[in-house]
Amino acid sequence: MAIPKKIWANSGDSHFLEPPDLFDERLPKALADRMPKSQKFDGYEIVTVDGQQFRRNMPKPGNTGETMSDIVNKRAPGANDPVLRLQDLDEEGIWAEVTFPSIGIWASSIKSRELMASGVAALNDWAKEYIMDASPRLLPTASVSLLDVDDAVAEVRRCAAMGYRAAFLPTAVPPGQKPYHYIDYWNPLWTALEETNTVLAFHIGTEPVDADKGFGQVFRGPGGAVLNYTQTTFGGQISTMQMITSGALDQHPDLRILVSEGGATWGPFLGDRMNEGYRQHGKYVRPQLSKPPKQFLYEQVYASFQHDETAVGAMQHLGWNNVMWGSDYPHLEGTYGHTQKTLHELFDDAPDDVRRRITVGAFQDLFPEVGEPPADEY
Amino acid sequence: MAIPKKIWANSGDSHFLEPPDLFDERLPKALADRMPKSQKFDGYEIVTVDGQQFRRNMPKPGNTGETMSDIVNKRAPGANDPVLRLQDLDEEGIWAEVTFPSIGIWASSIKSRELMASGVAALNDWAKEYIMDASPRLLPTASVSLLDVDDAVAEVRRCAAMGYRAAFLPTAVPPGQKPYHYIDYWNPLWTALEETNTVLAFHIGTEPVDADKGFGQVFRGPGGAVLNYTQTTFGGQISTMQMITSGALDQHPDLRILVSEGGATWGPFLGDRMNEGYRQHGKYVRPQLSKPPKQFLYEQVYASFQHDETAVGAMQHLGWNNVMWGSDYPHLEGTYGHTQKTLHELFDDAPDDVRRRITVGAFQDLFPEVGEPPADEY
Repeated sequence: MAIPKKIWANSGDSHFLEPPDLFDERLPKALADRMPKSQKFDGYEIVTVDGQQFRRNMPKPGNTGETMSDIVNKRAPGANDPVLRLQDLDEEGIWAEVTFPSIGIWASSIKSRELMASGVAALNDWAKEYIMDASPRLLPTASVSLLDVDDAVAEVRRCAAMGYRAAFLPTAVPPGQKPYHYIDYWNPLWTALEETNTVLAFHIGTEPVDADKGFGQVFRGPGGAVLNYTQTTFGGQISTMQMITSGALDQHPDLRILVSEGGATWGPFLGDRMNEGYRQHGKYVRPQLSKPPKQFLYEQVYASFQHDETAVGAMQHLGWNNVMWGSDYPHLEGTYGHTQKTLHELFDDAPDDVRRRITVGAFQDLFPEVGEPPADEY
Repeated sequence: MAIPKKIWANSGDSHFLEPPDLFDERLPKALADRMPKSQKFDGYEIVTVDGQQFRRNMPKPGNTGETMSDIVNKRAPGANDPVLRLQDLDEEGIWAEVTFPSIGIWASSIKSRELMASGVAALNDWAKEYIMDASPRLLPTASVSLLDVDDAVAEVRRCAAMGYRAAFLPTAVPPGQKPYHYIDYWNPLWTALEETNTVLAFHIGTEPVDADKGFGQVFRGPGGAVLNYTQTTFGGQISTMQMITSGALDQHPDLRILVSEGGATWGPFLGDRMNEGYRQHGKYVRPQLSKPPKQFLYEQVYASFQHDETAVGAMQHLGWNNVMWGSDYPHLEGTYGHTQKTLHELFDDAPDDVRRRITVGAFQDLFPEVGEPPADEY
């Protein structure tokens, strides 16, 4: 096998930072005023959202005096700008990418249906004009309100008509809402996604946060940074379990799920475990499925990873073909600045067909319209 | 490669059911009266423990009128009896096994240090006489009180002197206690385990339960049975993360962890993910470790699984050598009644050295004194 000098890859995971005045420009003042606003002070911020007010300490990791979002903005200005972004992608060797919104940490504090539905519509209109229309290589994901299934269905259908190919769902529903495995409630949304050929994209680390608690910071103390990062993967696995065991993927064979940033090798593991529970507890399992749970996972669920060194082995030897690479641009967990180094480490010893499948093919299953990256140079 | 007719395996996971009068026989009446007691009625039970009283609905899965423990007792009488158990093991092809206690669902409701310390001592004395002394093939795990680290240390040292080779720790600490990654608090326990050559055995599904809530039943509704079973694995992974990222395994290079019943293929996945967080968030990581997190996992952490079809591939191709088989005797998730069928499905196409490592070798790393199973017959 010959390894190209520059490896081109599609990315199943990247992020856009929205402009701070997005809602002021697009919503009536009465609604815009209720969207999340932050006033920053030394060491803390005051956030107001939907009539509530929170004080939040501003973490300054590493005592550099910079917040995490200062750091990300400075290292990757393309996070906010499609022209600069495409330059970065060309430089790094990334052809097409799925982009997720960055707003969200406060979205779970919005309790009003009207406000949430208007907010996601404004965000999706903006992303259509600013990201989707900038290049066919950029595939923004539609945000939806989960406060009511009818609102989610309507926004998925509206966005699909605008050209959206994927909808972003958080890994857990808002507080008080029915969890994803309550299929009788959520089935209209699964139907809308399937009928509009919209990929259901779960991004890990997006469980709603309780504003009065730790903002997803589950662990403090020794090892906290690694514990909190590693912990985020479980939410993507749980959402996947819910979609399979509830029968949602069984009832919607054309529905495809993408779990972004959750890693590469969890699929074989989770599949084996669900199969064990399904078979050994068979008498108590409702609903019965037309195939073992692992088969739904292998056929209808895709995953993106950045650095996992066992990704190639999992595809070659554990039979999970729906693993794709992702850059997580512009985040710290991602490969920005070392993408080619990472791709060569991952694939220089891999068979051509496995490299092709992980860098290009699995992504094309979901989004064939992005076409082919530039030809490899040897 | 030739496959033996009967495949013999050690088991990293089994369970003993304690007799109901264990505490009455071994503790002063004033303490015995405060240990968990259940009065069963039609469809519910009243449990008293340490001065508290709870009413609990008795789940009758599958509407057979039987509780889960009725079902288990009926299918495997060896659950309560070492002589019958050894007959079952011989029949199934299991040589040596690690056994976990079954008491526990109410143990997290005990708030008194004295009561908990006396209770685990009584349980360990009983298991020494009734299980350990019955056969060198049976390796009971010592229970410890986690209400205070000094009590845990004392019981580990007492049990090691009695011949115990492993201590059972639940996958999370009791409510109000410091989580496992607070190494400054727990370090004396890690030291005691390492110094006494006692394996730290986490059994999945053992998080303390809140008596007023769902008893570990996280999910209800469609898919609940499979969701709840699959979910249990995450606790074992989180405990492992805590032991690695806090530096406990770094400071105690001779300490070995066994994660029982958590499955086979999560190690490579979790290792890759911890490495990513450790490297990408490097500036914010405390403590720094002497090796990447995955290396501690691969070197000092062992896992047992029952049916996972990717176990062989994970060892052969993803480099995790510390995977061992386990029967989970006598539970429904286990292989009782179909052990040989399972072992042949797992290993008939595997290289001899991989079969040997998973069925015998990894277990012997931890417990070499159990010796060799009977010679294979071809």
